[in-house]
Amino acid sequence: MGARGILLVDHGSRNAAANESLEAIADLVREKLGEGALVGFAHMELAPPGIAEGLAQLVRAGAMEIVVVPYFLAAGRHSTEDIPRMVDEAMRAHPEVSHGVAPPLGVDALLAELVIRRAGGEST
Amino acid sequence: MGARGILLVDHGSRNAAANESLEAIADLVREKLGEGALVGFAHMELAPPGIAEGLAQLVRAGAMEIVVVPYFLAAGRHSTEDIPRMVDEAMRAHPEVSHGVAPPLGVDALLAELVIRRAGGEST
Repeated sequence: MGARGILLVDHGSRNAAANESLEAIADLVREKLGEGALVGFAHMELAPPGIAEGLAQLVRAGAMEIVVVPYFLAAGRHSTEDIPRMVDEAMRAHPEVSHGVAPPLGVDALLAELVIRRAGGEST
Repeated sequence: MGARGILLVDHGSRNAAANESLEAIADLVREKLGEGALVGFAHMELAPPGIAEGLAQLVRAGAMEIVVVPYFLAAGRHSTEDIPRMVDEAMRAHPEVSHGVAPPLGVDALLAELVIRRAGGEST
């Protein structure tokens, strides 16, 4: 098993700030995982880099398996159908690299903690 | 200063599972804050309860100040314009209760941690 890459994928927006926030999260993930971690980001549509480009960058950087994380709060057609289909299609160009698509962010205590933080932090 | 209420507000969806995930997060926030915490949820549109109804429920439960947390990953028109306007309008019916609108979830290390968890948890 070779190096593992993570690709964050959101919908993509015409709003540059929204696209930049995905890049900022990818930077935080890379920092947390430590030096040399293969972490990228891509948008389904409306802004570059697209999914095929994001995957290709991770492969060029040496990823031998890639996990795609749909950066969506709730499960829906984008995270369960569109992204897996687009990833499968793009990965035909990289048959030597294994890949999978994770669940979206979904329901998690970390999100409850973040809500409390945004509300003014009664609990932490 | 009286009891403080938190209202989570997302866009709302025709997909019941998406709406239920907001309710599940509200439940987690309530658990974290402990017994008697005033935590509600509402959708901007497409599904009940709406913002005015969610706010009224918190007021009836005894909230004297309410913080609305836009449950969106990135800042955009909904979180910075539409929700504050809808909240201001609805709160005219409750002039005795103070209110504010928090920033959306945005960029935070907790979200990076959640991405790593969904990707299969290399770091924790």
